[in-house]
Amino acid sequence: MTAARGFRAAAVEAGIKPGRTDLALVVSDRPCVASGVFTTNLAKAAPVLVSAEHLRGGSARAIVVNAGCANASTGPQGMTDARESVQLVAAALGCPVDEVLVCSTGVIGVNLPMDKIRGAIPLAVSGLSGEGGAAAARAIMTTDTKPKESSRRVDLGGVTVTVGGMAKGAGMIAPSLAPLHATMLAFFTTDATIDRATLDRALLDAVGPTFNRITVDSDTSTNDTAIVLANGAAGAALVSGPGPAYNALRDAFREVCRDLALMMIRDGEGVQRIAEVVVKGARTEGDALRIARTIADSPLVKTALHGGDPNWGRIIAAAGRAGVHFDIDKVDIHIGEVFVCEGGAARSYDEAAAHQAMLADPGRLTVDLHAGEAAESMWMCDLTKSYVDINAHYRT
Amino acid sequence: MTAARGFRAAAVEAGIKPGRTDLALVVSDRPCVASGVFTTNLAKAAPVLVSAEHLRGGSARAIVVNAGCANASTGPQGMTDARESVQLVAAALGCPVDEVLVCSTGVIGVNLPMDKIRGAIPLAVSGLSGEGGAAAARAIMTTDTKPKESSRRVDLGGVTVTVGGMAKGAGMIAPSLAPLHATMLAFFTTDATIDRATLDRALLDAVGPTFNRITVDSDTSTNDTAIVLANGAAGAALVSGPGPAYNALRDAFREVCRDLALMMIRDGEGVQRIAEVVVKGARTEGDALRIARTIADSPLVKTALHGGDPNWGRIIAAAGRAGVHFDIDKVDIHIGEVFVCEGGAARSYDEAAAHQAMLADPGRLTVDLHAGEAAESMWMCDLTKSYVDINAHYRT
Repeated sequence: MTAARGFRAAAVEAGIKPGRTDLALVVSDRPCVASGVFTTNLAKAAPVLVSAEHLRGGSARAIVVNAGCANASTGPQGMTDARESVQLVAAALGCPVDEVLVCSTGVIGVNLPMDKIRGAIPLAVSGLSGEGGAAAARAIMTTDTKPKESSRRVDLGGVTVTVGGMAKGAGMIAPSLAPLHATMLAFFTTDATIDRATLDRALLDAVGPTFNRITVDSDTSTNDTAIVLANGAAGAALVSGPGPAYNALRDAFREVCRDLALMMIRDGEGVQRIAEVVVKGARTEGDALRIARTIADSPLVKTALHGGDPNWGRIIAAAGRAGVHFDIDKVDIHIGEVFVCEGGAARSYDEAAAHQAMLADPGRLTVDLHAGEAAESMWMCDLTKSYVDINAHYRT
Repeated sequence: MTAARGFRAAAVEAGIKPGRTDLALVVSDRPCVASGVFTTNLAKAAPVLVSAEHLRGGSARAIVVNAGCANASTGPQGMTDARESVQLVAAALGCPVDEVLVCSTGVIGVNLPMDKIRGAIPLAVSGLSGEGGAAAARAIMTTDTKPKESSRRVDLGGVTVTVGGMAKGAGMIAPSLAPLHATMLAFFTTDATIDRATLDRALLDAVGPTFNRITVDSDTSTNDTAIVLANGAAGAALVSGPGPAYNALRDAFREVCRDLALMMIRDGEGVQRIAEVVVKGARTEGDALRIARTIADSPLVKTALHGGDPNWGRIIAAAGRAGVHFDIDKVDIHIGEVFVCEGGAARSYDEAAAHQAMLADPGRLTVDLHAGEAAESMWMCDLTKSYVDINAHYRT
């Protein structure tokens, strides 16, 4: 988060998750153009509502994030607490309240321990540093086993611009970030100069094919948020509307998103192996995505991936229940390079090779519908006993 | 299956699943009025296609069922094999081919071992017995740990009529039997006298609120089938259209279905605990069912149930992503009798009591939307490490 110029970050131990840092603060040294996308879940957490409201103005300077408590399903008290959190940050930074955004992640239905937040915010402000990005990425973790950071540099008219990002998320991962489909927190900073409408577009263009194409457990969270702050500190020319500069910046942004999205699924709860599900030959991209998502979320495909079992019958069964109409008798399926199903039916193939392809990491499951030209893909992970362990004992 | 008069059954070791019975045959001593519902999955297995075709005539005498091979995704050879199976039975019984129905369950994408089927069918025919129901129920099992049988008797105008049934299914269970929503095989016999249209209605009325309200893993199978044969052997008056006789017969039929559906979810792969998800106060039954199904299929709710963790935040988060519009700030949630969430927010409750309620078996999770008068419910099960074990090593 501090790879781009003009951003500082800090992490402190607020005491919400004892014995580790659990509150992160990211601050730009000047006001930023800001954009955000949020969960499509009806049960939106209080910090989601407050941040969405503050982003309406299109300008922000700071993001405060806590782990350990989602401040979701917390009623009026939750809203009061989220508002107090941003007020405390604004007061300490000397900026307008609506330039501060807030995110929370952790247990649902528990109020924020405001005594701890009140004590932690001044410490975070005083700890802000141009080298604080890595610590911030660690402080926002919940069941993550590793912090997730990435950055890219891109030349815009002779000026080097940086896009940095961090993310967290290991469970409740089936991102559906409005107006697209996400379950996680992701934060981006850039020192590019860009207008709000163009930044909105860039955020969607970067998140859509990356975060919204991963699924750990099909559970879309109450707190999913992706926020980008652009402070113009690199001094490059304004990026406004489509064109080569937009494309270059979007590509860098998308690469950061892809890095983080793959780190997220790789670090999904209990995950041992990941695979890309590619559906091609569909009539529409919507059809292809719906089938890819149904396969990626199928418990039986996920356990087959875990066991290295090239059980393509589960793949075709998942495709067949996806709610998309196509001719099942034209479907071809490859596991890696092994052609296992042709025209919807078994074909002879080398079982040992298919088993090896199913053990590949990352693996690739390709379904060709032979119904059109559209293609889409999803990243999936296996379902393991560790997932059960982690989630059967998460809260109590 | 042999509780109703005039039905005989047999089970033999065809050798598809070595060391156990794996082929069942049920035969009526006279032609029956028959009705069936089948999977909504596009990837319909060959036996599903053949049985649906034969049921168009509305009459049947026999059902042959094999375990160990689903004969699904097997192309033209699969159709040839399914047709040969029914021909063999018809020839041995001396009845028309279209009076024989066929069902298969097991691995997808593998051809039926016809040499074994050809050897087994004559043995099954010669082994038919009025006491063969229990053996048949055992022969159709796959990952089931227990056979599933039930029957009810009902008085129709002074004549006792019997409805009997057997079912199998432990994984790939999210029944969606057209025109409703099932993943399993279920077979029913009755010695009632009933016309085809009324039997069609009775089957839907019995299956809808029972089999189509259970989910083990959200994976709708390629082979789901429910078939009923009514042979009139009791000599009761014809049941035709609505009325008290219909209601009495339907209620008996529905009770048999409920027994079998609950046996099925109780015996779901790796299941240790089951719970009923009740959604009430919805605007429509469709809304209520969609929310109940999303909660019942949520991996995070399923693991919470496994751990006895009264983590209602996962319940409200699942409700919020179900695709139904409602006011999240009006939602009340009870776990058993413990009122844990009021108006969409945490309320104080006895944690130990909630934990005990979450450990209850069967448990009950109640969500009240306060948006209308409609209610629906689903039976769910926990997600355990055994589910992973069973499915990561199913085929190889």
